[in-house]
Amino acid sequence: MNVGRHDAVEVIAAKRDGHVLTDSQIDWVVDAFTSGEVADVQMASLAMAIVLNGMEFSEIARWTDAMIRSGERMDFSGLSWPTADKHSTGGVGDKITLPLAPLVAACGVAVPQLSGRGLGHTGGTLDKLESIPGWRADLSTDAMMRQLEDVGAVICAAGTGLAPADKKLYALRDVTGTVESIPLIASSIMSKKIAEGTGALVLDVKVGSGAFMKDLDDARELARTMVALGKSAGVDTRALVTDMSTPLGLTAGNALEVAESVEVLAGGGPSDVVELTLALAREMLSAAGREDVDPADVLASGRAMDVWRRMIVAQGGDPDAALPHASDIQVIAADRDGYVGHIDAMAVGLAAWRLGAGRSRPGETVQAGAGVELHARPGDRVRTGQPLMTLHTDTPERFARALAALDDGYALVDEAPAARTTPVLERIV
Amino acid sequence: MNVGRHDAVEVIAAKRDGHVLTDSQIDWVVDAFTSGEVADVQMASLAMAIVLNGMEFSEIARWTDAMIRSGERMDFSGLSWPTADKHSTGGVGDKITLPLAPLVAACGVAVPQLSGRGLGHTGGTLDKLESIPGWRADLSTDAMMRQLEDVGAVICAAGTGLAPADKKLYALRDVTGTVESIPLIASSIMSKKIAEGTGALVLDVKVGSGAFMKDLDDARELARTMVALGKSAGVDTRALVTDMSTPLGLTAGNALEVAESVEVLAGGGPSDVVELTLALAREMLSAAGREDVDPADVLASGRAMDVWRRMIVAQGGDPDAALPHASDIQVIAADRDGYVGHIDAMAVGLAAWRLGAGRSRPGETVQAGAGVELHARPGDRVRTGQPLMTLHTDTPERFARALAALDDGYALVDEAPAARTTPVLERIV
Repeated sequence: MNVGRHDAVEVIAAKRDGHVLTDSQIDWVVDAFTSGEVADVQMASLAMAIVLNGMEFSEIARWTDAMIRSGERMDFSGLSWPTADKHSTGGVGDKITLPLAPLVAACGVAVPQLSGRGLGHTGGTLDKLESIPGWRADLSTDAMMRQLEDVGAVICAAGTGLAPADKKLYALRDVTGTVESIPLIASSIMSKKIAEGTGALVLDVKVGSGAFMKDLDDARELARTMVALGKSAGVDTRALVTDMSTPLGLTAGNALEVAESVEVLAGGGPSDVVELTLALAREMLSAAGREDVDPADVLASGRAMDVWRRMIVAQGGDPDAALPHASDIQVIAADRDGYVGHIDAMAVGLAAWRLGAGRSRPGETVQAGAGVELHARPGDRVRTGQPLMTLHTDTPERFARALAALDDGYALVDEAPAARTTPVLERIV
Repeated sequence: MNVGRHDAVEVIAAKRDGHVLTDSQIDWVVDAFTSGEVADVQMASLAMAIVLNGMEFSEIARWTDAMIRSGERMDFSGLSWPTADKHSTGGVGDKITLPLAPLVAACGVAVPQLSGRGLGHTGGTLDKLESIPGWRADLSTDAMMRQLEDVGAVICAAGTGLAPADKKLYALRDVTGTVESIPLIASSIMSKKIAEGTGALVLDVKVGSGAFMKDLDDARELARTMVALGKSAGVDTRALVTDMSTPLGLTAGNALEVAESVEVLAGGGPSDVVELTLALAREMLSAAGREDVDPADVLASGRAMDVWRRMIVAQGGDPDAALPHASDIQVIAADRDGYVGHIDAMAVGLAAWRLGAGRSRPGETVQAGAGVELHARPGDRVRTGQPLMTLHTDTPERFARALAALDDGYALVDEAPAARTTPVLERIV
């Protein structure tokens, strides 16, 4: 670490004037922001200067490293397993972590999945799992390590000690219009993931209406930046750029997505969820040096389901308990014969959020049973009166706003549209 | 006022993405910032977006207007005099307000000069006047109005009720690297000046090493923007762009500058101070409809000195009292025969500041007697051993740092340089 003596206005002015920040400036400003010496107003101004003037890769790498150094770093080297982690940039119906973690563990690679809760239209992995009666997200580091060694998979809440500078900065960016920056997004994600100490990392970078990145070029640049950051920190990192123009699978919600994930583990489930789960599993196995194992065989064998059940039990959950369901449903039926032209991911995400599956502010509770269930996918032929979607909520006064979100979110058309053949658009290694 | 319902992140994102802010967005964000609904971190981010993406004239005008509406507005229409005000963007040795206000009053135009204290290398008009024994800067609005009617000139501290949004924003910009923006500088100056209620306004926009604007193009753009803002608010406004590459006059300090100002009022003083005082007086008289009066005649008549004395007495000062002088002096002598090549305004300003004439933080006290006295000007012929400057301070341990500031701040050369013929570079109406 090379913390020279700097001044917040000097660092801000350098980036404002289009200069490349020095290692010493970056180390100082991240450290001083963490300690409070650099005030929030100063970091807000610097963040906007970064949004507008960018950072070179060398700056992003140093920034990421400084954020990692702001806190603890986990160490899985004592495990008897190789480890691989997955991160998704977030989408609608993205329950992939749920079948993926036990599947990869069943293939011989341990998966330490430190996850978050959802905000806005994208659900959080912990919110989904918390719909399982008894399951708890908070584990001590010791308990997490023990479960990882015993079961091979753990999905739990990230401790507060990892990259505290990133946590502080993210809260600030959220209210200051400075989220939209590939350097800041990439360094935020990668500082947490590298601090988590995984040996290998696979990134699922979503693109489309339901994703943060709406544009393939941006998604590709984000993926490339993160892969390069991981590699420069010594973590074997690769990325898939995947489609989020339409929801993944047939459900968006908490318990609804758990049920769909269990179907996948049981050998069924929607083909796009199965395909993306297997594609990510292959990348994780390859990055962890186990490309000899075919995850499709392991999924078919039922061993992934066994790991799932042990993983849920280890965290207090009952894998055999009935999942909660919402008190009220409303069905949207086709008002004509035709084909499903499109189902927009953002519209479905907003509807699920408004039905109670998501939160507007950190700390709000979510409804376990709320969400949207799709009965048809783009390209499917439907007849008048046939159910297209079912909306679930415990608070039926929310149906109207959820229906409004879906107004332009799907269409029935005369000609069958080209159906999506695979959710995987690009692979970046 | 057209305050719609907006959201801070929406307004920040609009400017971040290069859009023109709507009247409603500007009104809302300035109002909500004043009330605290828009947080400082949000305004810091917006300020940086404005620094980097700029504002169109229509936005600057609305922004200025919103800042005026954030507070009180003074009204001099009850006076029996026309009024004219002057604002300088700040320089080294800029004591022009001191002879100018009584001179213009002696010409029949009242001058309500609400001034500030200095920060950094440029002195503040109030700091200078406070070196006069007994003189006080703080007047009630009633007392100010009475003095203006009785004497025709008042130089006092601006009340806190004028453009409070600007005060709050300026404090934020100062620590967030967002001072350097012509839209923000112009709207900050003009919101205060327009709120002060003057009928006519003359701007002295400094350019050169000792000024905020180092570059003539920037100074011209700032001057044009401010003139247009004044006119669009119904104030007859004009600007002179003046040279600040070398100090104005032969003194930089508090009591030192008062003494030089009194010399000018007595019919003497350095020619550049006299010339700029008369040039600004002519503009103020013209803007206030009194171009029939020649301020040179009035200065020569001694009537400006009479007004000065009454103005000082009205604010508790003794115009006949000896001015304070510093306890210690140090003389810089010529180390060779030759001509004075240049004397850098910033170097002299820094030296005066370090000697104790200026402050580093608001609220610090300044030394009345500290500063730099010049004995020669660029173009003057000097002989070895002849005094070039005298440094004054009550804290002689500061001499070393002041001398260091002057190290490259002047030069003796073989050939006589082209002397500055006039401090007035351009006139913008």
